[in-house]
Amino acid sequence: MTAKLFNKVVVFGVGLIGGSFALALRKAHAVESVVGFGRSKQTLVHAKQLGIIDSIGEDVSAEVADADLVMLATPVGQMGELMAGIAPHLGPQTIITDAGSTKVEVVREAYAQLGSKFAQFVPAHPIAGAEQSGAMAARSDLFQWKKVVLTPLPENSAVSVDRVRRAWEQCGAMVSTMTPTQHDEVFAVVSHLPHLLSYALVHDIAQRDNRDLLLSFAASGFRDFTRIAASSPEMWRDICMGNRDALLAELKIYIAELNRMSAALEAGDAEQLEQTFLSARTLRAGWTLK
Amino acid sequence: MTAKLFNKVVVFGVGLIGGSFALALRKAHAVESVVGFGRSKQTLVHAKQLGIIDSIGEDVSAEVADADLVMLATPVGQMGELMAGIAPHLGPQTIITDAGSTKVEVVREAYAQLGSKFAQFVPAHPIAGAEQSGAMAARSDLFQWKKVVLTPLPENSAVSVDRVRRAWEQCGAMVSTMTPTQHDEVFAVVSHLPHLLSYALVHDIAQRDNRDLLLSFAASGFRDFTRIAASSPEMWRDICMGNRDALLAELKIYIAELNRMSAALEAGDAEQLEQTFLSARTLRAGWTLK
Repeated sequence: MTAKLFNKVVVFGVGLIGGSFALALRKAHAVESVVGFGRSKQTLVHAKQLGIIDSIGEDVSAEVADADLVMLATPVGQMGELMAGIAPHLGPQTIITDAGSTKVEVVREAYAQLGSKFAQFVPAHPIAGAEQSGAMAARSDLFQWKKVVLTPLPENSAVSVDRVRRAWEQCGAMVSTMTPTQHDEVFAVVSHLPHLLSYALVHDIAQRDNRDLLLSFAASGFRDFTRIAASSPEMWRDICMGNRDALLAELKIYIAELNRMSAALEAGDAEQLEQTFLSARTLRAGWTLK
Repeated sequence: MTAKLFNKVVVFGVGLIGGSFALALRKAHAVESVVGFGRSKQTLVHAKQLGIIDSIGEDVSAEVADADLVMLATPVGQMGELMAGIAPHLGPQTIITDAGSTKVEVVREAYAQLGSKFAQFVPAHPIAGAEQSGAMAARSDLFQWKKVVLTPLPENSAVSVDRVRRAWEQCGAMVSTMTPTQHDEVFAVVSHLPHLLSYALVHDIAQRDNRDLLLSFAASGFRDFTRIAASSPEMWRDICMGNRDALLAELKIYIAELNRMSAALEAGDAEQLEQTFLSARTLRAGWTLK
């Protein structure tokens, strides 16, 4: 019998992402045992009952000392404090990784909090829909054919990066790499900004006295446009704050685009509107999510 | 055998909406014969082959003279010209209706173009997804359980309004009424603005050299947010121009909302962002499209 990829994996935050990562590794026989930590004892009890984790962690220092892999799957805003808590106890062989949706800020925190263990941190971001959340939503196939971006650090050993890559490949994911800055710029455009825009529209409606009437006439276009406005406010607050610079830059570009459209409308410039719509339609109609 | 609701219906624009309306009436045995007019001869030939229409109209004046119902299912920008062309020929018993997504502008055109026949025009708007288009996409059940808004005019006879209502009920739709102005304000918020916003984001990406890279990392949130950016540019140009005032007012409110979010981000005001997201999430998570 061949050795498993990991003997022991410790997951902080056994929700949709952390729980699905654990389930997928277990299903692939890539891990011997999984230990879970989290803010809610009840969630951890459920996770154990559901076979997501083998045991509920009690003592952080003891558990991370002999772990092969520590996965941080909490909202990004909690990662700094978490890193500070585990840094002194990480064994020399322990790789630490994360599943945060922003990377520059997480790397900055890791640099500040992990000290001499910084090189053991291999940042990662699995691109999997997170409108649902919680351990109950975890599935072993969540990452099947999904993209995972690693943003390796110059300080990482090739072996550490390779082990994190193989972990995600065992989960069925397709792994690519870029720098933390590239990552944050890309996701500001295709993920963080759309979430902000969707929240903004629904918030705008939520403020109005006639919101129920308005919603009663909303159709499938509205339903899809606003689906992501049901995402976790805490998670998205952290993502927006964590990717503030890139997101602000994109938001300013977008507001300028809306101001141009507003001016075209005001001027009755139907031609400019149609050209804008046509350029968007051409790109969007030619794209499908793989 | 009971008489059918309509002996003869003439449809201008045998696309998704006009074609589905014809199919649904035929399936409900609510019409004896359907005549189709359109810009593309080939589409009309297809529509006849598909059993959507009984015959391809040749002579507008002859066909509308003895029709019970004339349905205008073209982009709203073409309706004025169309009305001008048919007005002199409409029989005294002929009801004219439309399926346009804006109502104030269409009513204004009807007033200008239909002259003494204005009272025969009963404006309507079926709320059915129109990302697909064309006669090939027409389905007899497109309007099943969908909402249709009538915006009757003070000049309409009760009988005319009732016949249009019954036509849509035969298609399986749920009919409600409001004024043209109310209609346009409601749909500026829940439909027209989201389309503009979705087009704006994709247009913004289409302008960039790295658009393919960006799209390669887009996930399901982006897919759903931008689905409506694949809608017909011509149709949405007309809708935006036709509902310019209400849409401009909503766009300005939305830009102000984005400027507030931008200021909160810039100030690092995580609390304000979270409150905004939470208010949106609460409303959106409690709503489902019926």
